[in-house]
This record gives sequence, structure tokens and C-alpha cells, in this order.
Amino acid sequence: MTASAASLDSIRTEVDRALRDFLDRQRPHFSDPHLAALLSAAEDFIAGGKRLRPAFCHWGWRAAGGGDDPGLHVAAASLELLQASALIHDDVMDASDVRRGMPSAHRRFERMHAEAGWHGSGRQFGEGTAVLLGNLLLVWSGEMWRTSGLAPEAIAAAQPLHDYMLTELMCGQYLDLLEQAQGESTFDSALRVALYKSGKYSVEQPLRLGLVLAAQASHAWIDRLCVQYGQQVGIAFQLRDDILGVFGDPAETGKPAGDDLREGKRTVLIARALASATPAQTAVVRSLLGDPALDAEGVAQLRTVIEETGALAACEGMIKRYLDDALHALDQAPIEEEARTALAALAVAATSRRT
Amino acid sequence: MTASAASLDSIRTEVDRALRDFLDRQRPHFSDPHLAALLSAAEDFIAGGKRLRPAFCHWGWRAAGGGDDPGLHVAAASLELLQASALIHDDVMDASDVRRGMPSAHRRFERMHAEAGWHGSGRQFGEGTAVLLGNLLLVWSGEMWRTSGLAPEAIAAAQPLHDYMLTELMCGQYLDLLEQAQGESTFDSALRVALYKSGKYSVEQPLRLGLVLAAQASHAWIDRLCVQYGQQVGIAFQLRDDILGVFGDPAETGKPAGDDLREGKRTVLIARALASATPAQTAVVRSLLGDPALDAEGVAQLRTVIEETGALAACEGMIKRYLDDALHALDQAPIEEEARTALAALAVAATSRRT
Repeated sequence: MTASAASLDSIRTEVDRALRDFLDRQRPHFSDPHLAALLSAAEDFIAGGKRLRPAFCHWGWRAAGGGDDPGLHVAAASLELLQASALIHDDVMDASDVRRGMPSAHRRFERMHAEAGWHGSGRQFGEGTAVLLGNLLLVWSGEMWRTSGLAPEAIAAAQPLHDYMLTELMCGQYLDLLEQAQGESTFDSALRVALYKSGKYSVEQPLRLGLVLAAQASHAWIDRLCVQYGQQVGIAFQLRDDILGVFGDPAETGKPAGDDLREGKRTVLIARALASATPAQTAVVRSLLGDPALDAEGVAQLRTVIEETGALAACEGMIKRYLDDALHALDQAPIEEEARTALAALAVAATSRRT
Repeated sequence: MTASAASLDSIRTEVDRALRDFLDRQRPHFSDPHLAALLSAAEDFIAGGKRLRPAFCHWGWRAAGGGDDPGLHVAAASLELLQASALIHDDVMDASDVRRGMPSAHRRFERMHAEAGWHGSGRQFGEGTAVLLGNLLLVWSGEMWRTSGLAPEAIAAAQPLHDYMLTELMCGQYLDLLEQAQGESTFDSALRVALYKSGKYSVEQPLRLGLVLAAQASHAWIDRLCVQYGQQVGIAFQLRDDILGVFGDPAETGKPAGDDLREGKRTVLIARALASATPAQTAVVRSLLGDPALDAEGVAQLRTVIEETGALAACEGMIKRYLDDALHALDQAPIEEEARTALAALAVAATSRRT
């Protein structure tokens, strides 16, 4: 095991502990037996994330000279509640059936409705409950962040960023919906969505929160590092996500093969394929992309187009260039050496992952 | 105009101003023209509420000796963002088409999708956007509350209550979904939902927040007033809502006649009707309640059952008793006289409203 893998493991352990402690604080509010299903769903959807966002926050904190402080693990772990909330709502919006190899939240509650033989529409019950569960995790994320136990001055310095991150996240997700609806995305518009929808809140903002929590202020070098390293790793992270959404192994991703194709996601990968597709290839994309009933053969046809247009290779090349540029910026930053090494390893892990 | 109506008007003016100022602070984040529709929907859904929750918060603050502080208007107004968020999500969950006489948020965005001739499912686009819009208002509500400008000690004293209110709200809405799904609600379970889903966060918690903001601590008398006045006015408020959902005038409520009947809401009113219905009356309720295609004649049939079983009169009687008990508790509380008069008027307004 490499040193960086060991450190990611140890961050994961601390994050898991902080999340368990937070849920234990909420447990007394769920003493009504009718609420048990809601709490246990919250627990299941919090479990099993990659904990990349807390890791970026952790190493941002260390990069700016932050020391050992249990409060930092709590603040960093709160980002996982936000992520779980976003995934649960995303699955409702995309009508996705599966998440991390389990039924998505709305499907889980739809099944509970069916098994109990309850009244009314099971779909509506499932979706409604998933919206509420996502809301619960969203408000808990803010509560956990604010009650981390970090110094009040640290939290006060970073709170405006945290507030802005949430507004930006909702706006980015809206831009994503709009992009799918408008359909004819260009390469540039798809890239903008990749940055706003995921890149910023997956990498740049967690990193920035950690840096500002430790520095208790924003500095020009922090902003430079967040843009030049954070945004570029963020976009590369999302490009990897796009590739996994088409070519990923269901056993590793926990999502059905070609799920993004079935949902008609207008990713950078697709925009790049369309930009250099022949009329015949364009026709294949137009007829198959977004077909909810797309089967294995359809997935294979679309994969072939994406490979033969050079889009897959182009996206891999972009990931490599963004990563190289990010690592170069990281080298220039006036940060702690241990954090520099860890952030370099984290950038590689985030952009070469298989899940 | 009575003094209390004048004071509610002046609170409304301050609340509207605070909401406008807050939105103006957010406006720079919406410079991308693609985001304009999201911001203007937020503005429309914030406009036009009754501002009852801010009024309970305002008079809680004054009751515990709080003075003139512009920050209080901001903190109180933040409750309207929370309410707008809950209504937007509620309408998605209930598949309601109309809110305050306008299309509900998901219908508004579904229509935008249709008019633009965009790709994919307009329903899915509308619901997805409504979920995000509700999320945006939910996070803004927390941000506005924390950045009111009130003394940090005041906010710190009330923040745990605010956090708990949000958890309780999501749990209460889940219990409501569960109650509708399980169908065979008893009088007691319907009453519990009335308290948890709406009563607490409409009256008790706004009042409690105002009291604790001013007192910068919780006291036994605060708790007593919140339970004996706040919860009872809250339940009576929800009972009035239940009655308006069946008997309300669409021109006043801004919702279609008998909307709650079409949605199959298992309210206290319905539970009370079923408790003393003849077999024939029970059959009418079972066959019509929750029928999405329920027409005017069906609404009239159900209204007749609710009146003839005595359920309407019983609910009116309950409202009166809860109100009387609340006013009695208010008389005993060690609070400022001006606030006592205003809270009495507010309790009457909240439980005798026609919209």
C-alpha cells in the first residue's frame, strides 16, 4: 500500500467515525417507530462513499498549516452528507434505479410501499420520500459543518464560501438539466456544465474550504491554487465520471452499464463525439442516446461511435493535460510539503479511478 | 383597520423588504442568462405569502423583551424562504398543479420545457427543476437566518432550535406521506400528523425562535408558552387548513376546490368523518377520496358526508377549544403586554383565515 492510499484510508476512518457520531446525535429525534425507515435509509446512503471530498478538504487544511484537530474531520465529513443528498435527489431527477449497487432511494421506498400493500401511487411515495430524505441530509450537512467544534473564527471565515458552494451546486445542477433538455450541447457548454455541476463542488470548493478554515482568510495564493489545481482536477474528475458512465464496469461502479447513455446525458464525451461524427455516426447517436429502453447492443453501438470518432481518446488526453497542469500549479504553491505530496496523489486517484 | 391588522401589515412590509434585499445579494450569482428562469421563479414563489410565520417570530421576540432591531426582520423573514421551499417540494410530492392561483413550480418548468420544444420528458424536467428550486430556497433560508445581523449570542442561543426545526419538518412531512399511504388513519394519528407536519413549524417553532433570540436562553416559561399556546394554535391552524382544503373558496385559497379530497389527504377532518360514518357514508369516502379525476359532483358528495357525520362541526369545535386554551395560556405568560395583545390577535387570524 502506498503512503497516499494509507492516508486516504485513515481519512476515511475518521470521516466514517464523525458521520456515525453525528447520526447518533440525531437518533433521539427518531424515537417514533414510524421514522425508523427514514433514519436507516439515511445511514445506508451515507455509507460507502469514496470520501474524496473530505480528503480534499483535509489536505487543504493541512496545506495551509492546519494541525491535528478533530473538528476538521467533522467539518470535512459534513461534505459527504451533502454529496449523499445530491445523489439521492439526482436519482429522482434522472429516474435512476440503482446507486452504488443498491436500489436508489426512491426505488427503495417505492418497494417498501409495494411490499406493505399501501394505498396510492408507490412511485409518488418513493419519490416524495427521497426528496425529503435528500432534504434531511442537506440540512444535516449544514448543521454538521457548523457544529464541527473548529474555532469560531475559522468557521466564520469559511462560512460565506460554504453558503456560496450550496447556491452554486443547485445552479450547476439546474444548468445540467437545462443542457440535457436543450439537447444540442456544444463542446464548450458541456465543459461548462462539467465544471459547474461537479468539478467545483467535488474538488475546488472542498479544497478551498479546508484552506480557508486553516488560514482563517482568503489569500491570492489560495485562490490561484483553487483555480489552477482545484478546477482542473475537478473537470478531469468529471470527465472520468463521463467515461465511467459509458465504459465503466457495473461490478465496480455500482451502476448499470451505459447508464448515462440511457439517460441521454449530454457530456463532454458525447459533445466531442458529435463534433467529429460522420452523418451515419450522428444518426446512431441521435436515435439511441436517451432511449430509456437502450439494451446491451445499443450501448455497444454508442460505445463504438465514441471510440471511432476519437472522442474517448480525446477525453483521456484532456484528463491527462488537466492533471499535468494541476500538478504543475501544485508545485508552485506555497504549501506544506506533506500536503503537496498528498494532493498530487489525490489528483491522480480522483482522475484515474474505476468507480 | 384594527391595530393588529396594521401591525401585521407593517411586519409584512419589513419581511418583504428583507426578502428583496436578500435576493439582491444573491443576484450576482445569477449573471449567466441561463439561470434567469431559476431566479425569477424563486422571486415569484417568495412573493405573496401570508407572512404568519415571521409574525409569530416577531411577536415572540417582542414578548421576551426584544427591542427594535432590523436583524430580527431578516431572521423572521428567512422562515418564508423555508415555507416557500416546503410548498414547492410539497407540490411535487402531491403532484399539485396549482399554488396561490399560479401553476406550481414543477408545472411552470414543465410548461417552459413544452414551449421551448426541448428534448426528453417535460414532466421530469419540471419536477427536477422544482426539487432544485426548493433546495435553493432551503439553503437560502438557513443562510438568511444566520446572516441576519442579530447579535451572535442571540443566534447562537437559537441555532440548535433552528436545526431541530428543520429535522422535525422533514420528519413531519415524511409522517404525512406515510399516513396517506397507510390510508387507515385514526383520529389520533391524523392529529399527530397535523401537529408534526405543520402545527409545530408554522406556529410553535417560529414563536420559540423569536422568544429564544430575545432571551438568549430557553426558560421554563418559554417552553410552557410554546407548548400551551404555540402547539394549540398550531394544531388549530392546521385544522383550519384541513377545512379550507375541502370547503375553501378557490378564489380565496388559490387552490382548486376540494384539492385535498382529490389528493386523498388523510386529515383529522376525514378521520373524524369516518369515525362516525354509516356504512353507506364510509363507502362514499372509500370510493371517492383520493380519486385524481374527482369532479365537482364528487367533491359535493364528500362535503355532504363530512357535514352530515358532524365532522365539520366537530373540527370547528376543536379549533375553538384549542384557541380558547391557547389564549388562556397566553394570559398567564410573563410577557410584554403589547406582545400579548398581538399574539392573541394573531392566534385568531391564523385559525379563522379564509386563505
